[in-house]
Amino acid sequence: MSSLLVTGSIALDTVETPSGKAENQLGGSATYFSLAGSILNPVRLVGVVGEDFPKEYTNLLAKSPIDLQGIEVRKGSKTFRWHGRYSEDMNNRTTISVALNVLGEHGPKIPDKFKDSQHIFLANSDPALQLEFLDQLTSPKLIVCDTMDLWIEHNRQNLLEVLQRVDGVVLNDSESRLLTGETNILTAAQIVCQLGPKFVVIKKGEHGAMLFSEGAIFLLPAYPTQKVVDPTGAGDSFAGGFMGYLASVDQTDFQAQAQALVYGTIIASFTVESFSLDAISKIKRQDVDRRRMDFLKMIGTTLNV
Amino acid sequence: MSSLLVTGSIALDTVETPSGKAENQLGGSATYFSLAGSILNPVRLVGVVGEDFPKEYTNLLAKSPIDLQGIEVRKGSKTFRWHGRYSEDMNNRTTISVALNVLGEHGPKIPDKFKDSQHIFLANSDPALQLEFLDQLTSPKLIVCDTMDLWIEHNRQNLLEVLQRVDGVVLNDSESRLLTGETNILTAAQIVCQLGPKFVVIKKGEHGAMLFSEGAIFLLPAYPTQKVVDPTGAGDSFAGGFMGYLASVDQTDFQAQAQALVYGTIIASFTVESFSLDAISKIKRQDVDRRRMDFLKMIGTTLNV
Repeated sequence: MSSLLVTGSIALDTVETPSGKAENQLGGSATYFSLAGSILNPVRLVGVVGEDFPKEYTNLLAKSPIDLQGIEVRKGSKTFRWHGRYSEDMNNRTTISVALNVLGEHGPKIPDKFKDSQHIFLANSDPALQLEFLDQLTSPKLIVCDTMDLWIEHNRQNLLEVLQRVDGVVLNDSESRLLTGETNILTAAQIVCQLGPKFVVIKKGEHGAMLFSEGAIFLLPAYPTQKVVDPTGAGDSFAGGFMGYLASVDQTDFQAQAQALVYGTIIASFTVESFSLDAISKIKRQDVDRRRMDFLKMIGTTLNV
Repeated sequence: MSSLLVTGSIALDTVETPSGKAENQLGGSATYFSLAGSILNPVRLVGVVGEDFPKEYTNLLAKSPIDLQGIEVRKGSKTFRWHGRYSEDMNNRTTISVALNVLGEHGPKIPDKFKDSQHIFLANSDPALQLEFLDQLTSPKLIVCDTMDLWIEHNRQNLLEVLQRVDGVVLNDSESRLLTGETNILTAAQIVCQLGPKFVVIKKGEHGAMLFSEGAIFLLPAYPTQKVVDPTGAGDSFAGGFMGYLASVDQTDFQAQAQALVYGTIIASFTVESFSLDAISKIKRQDVDRRRMDFLKMIGTTLNV
């Protein structure tokens, strides 16, 4: 066990998928990350919500080993809201509306008691805020960040500065292409590593994930689930499982990263089986371990390699 | 070693990719399959070409352990021709022109000395011809077929009959969805198995392949190559490596199938590195084995699973 800190969005999501519609549900990158990560290691959550944030959602998060003292409830502000709709095959989504609200204001402060955190995940947010956040840390051991197309296109300079200061970055395949201008994923990953990070994890959704770390490569298919209800939060849950595992073993070498990729994959496979955090808030470590064993068989422990 | 027979197209291809253009090159499903498979096990090739088929291409095939006595050079006919163009990211291709020529006539006969073949691959062709072909076999041990969207949409009845008579089928993900009407790949694979085959291999191109075999699943990423010159023939080379391995070990159990998937993946990764058969006609078993060892590391032999 080691200290694991995340900062990112806490949201109220309205999501439409071929399975149905869920309104004003708990969402946000830091939320998914925290619930996912806390299955493996306690999580310190830093984020900001408005006065409208439902008490029941705070209670839900409090049931897991998540330290909520870093959640600021800002007076006179409203919680970030997102409304999205997925295509029939769930591979594309359209943002119907977004209200930044409190996320359009200044970022949250890290509580003094969190400043010594060793494992840090900067979930997707404005790289300018990510930099401010990094300045407050006293003893980071492993810093990993996420980002999105918006920042790659509109705040590239700050993002490049973030990349200089992190150990690793988690991107999806389209983001890695946008960041580097390279369509070949392997070349793109190599270029990302030249920008600063020692490793890069490329998420490919239903096609799995790839880890590029100081010259070594680890390739992992996705867990094949038959029940995809809502893909929202899969990437953040993946990151939560990834970082949660690394914090739990307090290791950062390639082998630990590869194992962490498996945990991220398995935990994300639960997330997509329900709307919002319904599935992931109910599972326990043993559920993850059971599915992980099934998955390890599927990826080749039956092979005499 | 065991006897391995393939039937399918032998073509003259003109291919345009972002890397350039190659005109009137040797192509066709049975050709790619044969060169790929013959790296692991001798191949008996059955197909038909026209009088225009260049002698140099016959010579090229003759350099590998491919028995060419099943190639009929039909008098007064012309070889099948295909002209295609790939998109910038190589994920889509457009057929610019196609001339069925000899493929629009009756199919080739299996030479008597090939009829006792044990491992059979029916590369993509009209399912009516695939059925005629099956009727000529005397002692098949493992029959696997391929198909395409054209037959799924326009000759479904014959295709369903073929599926009743084969042990396995190799499809790409879009074909499996078209055949079953299911978007979820796992559900689609289960439905395909209910149509007859004991196993189905789903090819996902740069995203790897999946094997579904009597309840068990094996998931494999693609080999990450930085040099994609021309994807033509990758699927047929994959099938050639898959069947070539199974014939070489003369086994058909799940473990052998999983290993065969790895060989198919590795051999296909060479195919895409050049136009036509340039790369695959030059590699030897040791090149395949070397890349295979690198690949096995990338998919998890570094994990303590």
